[in-house]
Amino acid sequence: MSGRPLDVLEGALAQTVTVRLKDGDTVYGQLSGYDQHMNVVLDADDSVIDEAVLGDPTAEPIEDTTIIRGDNVVSITV
Amino acid sequence: MSGRPLDVLEGALAQTVTVRLKDGDTVYGQLSGYDQHMNVVLDADDSVIDEAVLGDPTAEPIEDTTIIRGDNVVSITV
Amino acid sequence: MSGRPLDVLEGALAQTVTVRLKDGDTVYGQLSGYDQHMNVVLDADDSVIDEAVLGDPTAEPIEDTTIIRGDNVVSITV
Amino acid sequence: MSGRPLDVLEGALAQTVTVRLKDGDTVYGQLSGYDQHMNVVLDADDSVIDEAVLGDPTAEPIEDTTIIRGDNVVSITV
Amino acid sequence: MSGRPLDVLEGALAQTVTVRLKDGDTVYGQLSGYDQHMNVVLDADDSVIDEAVLGDPTAEPIEDTTIIRGDNVVSITV
Amino acid sequence: MSGRPLDVLEGALAQTVTVRLKDGDTVYGQLSGYDQHMNVVLDADDSVIDEAVLGDPTAEPIEDTTIIRGDNVVSITV
Amino acid sequence: MSGRPLDVLEGALAQTVTVRLKDGDTVYGQLSGYDQHMNVVLDADDSVIDEAVLGDPTAEPIEDTTIIRGDNVVSITV
Repeated sequence: MSGRPLDVLEGALAQTVTVRLKDGDTVYGQLSGYDQHMNVVLDADDSVIDEAVLGDPTAEPIEDTTIIRGDNVVSITV
Repeated sequence: MSGRPLDVLEGALAQTVTVRLKDGDTVYGQLSGYDQHMNVVLDADDSVIDEAVLGDPTAEPIEDTTIIRGDNVVSITV
Repeated sequence: MSGRPLDVLEGALAQTVTVRLKDGDTVYGQLSGYDQHMNVVLDADDSVIDEAVLGDPTAEPIEDTTIIRGDNVVSITV
Repeated sequence: MSGRPLDVLEGALAQTVTVRLKDGDTVYGQLSGYDQHMNVVLDADDSVIDEAVLGDPTAEPIEDTTIIRGDNVVSITV
Repeated sequence: MSGRPLDVLEGALAQTVTVRLKDGDTVYGQLSGYDQHMNVVLDADDSVIDEAVLGDPTAEPIEDTTIIRGDNVVSITV
Repeated sequence: MSGRPLDVLEGALAQTVTVRLKDGDTVYGQLSGYDQHMNVVLDADDSVIDEAVLGDPTAEPIEDTTIIRGDNVVSITV
Repeated sequence: MSGRPLDVLEGALAQTVTVRLKDGDTVYGQLSGYDQHMNVVLDADDSVIDEAVLGDPTAEPIEDTTIIRGDNVVSITV
């Protein structure tokens, strides 16, 4: 199981991640926490984000600390 | 897992939170309780809320103590 | 977790509650029981209900003792 | 939790109950069994049912012993 | 819980049962097995079935041994 | 529970099975593994398949070893 | 249960896999991790992929390390 999903999240703490949701929205922010259900906490990301880096030009920034319930998550790009 | 989702909810008790629901509605109120399923209890918030602060001008205020079942929650902004 | 969801339900026993369902219906009745899945039992409420108090003029009264399965519940206003 | 949902089902054994399903159908029959998932068994009900008593004129009678899987149930009126 | 759902399935082994699925299809066959998730195994039923007996003229016969995953089941008529 | 669903899968190992999916697709291949969630592994089936035998002329063959997650499965015909 | 689904994933580590998602998208990348929920981690795959080999000409490459939550997965072709 090398490089397990939760290990990858642990390694992404304090980094910018892009979260694709089941309702079609994509958001990005700084990963500040998560749990075993893949519930995640995103903080506003003050760094300048190059949208090309995000890989998804439609991604919206998180503006306030937000908990996303894991069952809405399609994927998390780190 | 630093800053885990339930820890963030614990820290937001008695504060105004905005809850986005799977049916597209967004509501806000004062967080008065929660549990491990992310079921939350919101009370009416008597403070004057600056909608700009909420980040979502379509958010509706909770008018009476309301339990929201966790499986309807997309995200909680604290 | 102060004011946890199930504690709020316990405190609402024998009171009128309004239950919003995932299919869009909203019903109200007297809460006579619940369990840890948020399955609830509503009885007909013989008191005169002021719809303004319910907060939702489209809410329909429960006419006979009804068990609502918890996974249909969006929210319960107490 | 007084009057818990499963206790109400226990009390309704051998009585006519009306079950509303997630697909919009409503059926009625004599409750002959249930389990903790709210799976229920309905038998044909030979008594003459006054539809006004059922509260739902669109309810269809169960004609043969039928197991309804609990995750299809919206509500059970006893 | 008298006449519990799984007991009713146990009693229906080797008999013709009609299974209504969430996708709207209804199938019938001889019940040859089941488990606690209400996954069921149906075999082709070589007896002549009187559709009036099935209660559902749209029911389709199972032609080869088929496992139906329980979470697709709305109801099983025995 | 005679002829339980997982026993039927065990007996079908190395045989051609037809899997109907919730999205409407039907695929067939040689069953090379499964687990208790009804996740299944299908391999390409090099034998000549008579579509009449499959019972479903729209079934598509699996071309490379494929894991199907169990919660997508409607039924498995063996 | 020979050739169980998770064993097949274990054997596919560091190889190119194609993942079909419930929203209709299909993506491919190098499998770098997974867990028991079939959450998977895909890395960008720098090798030249012959689309004929993928079996699905609509499959999109993963461009950055991405965690896909298992409940979105229809199938994984290895």
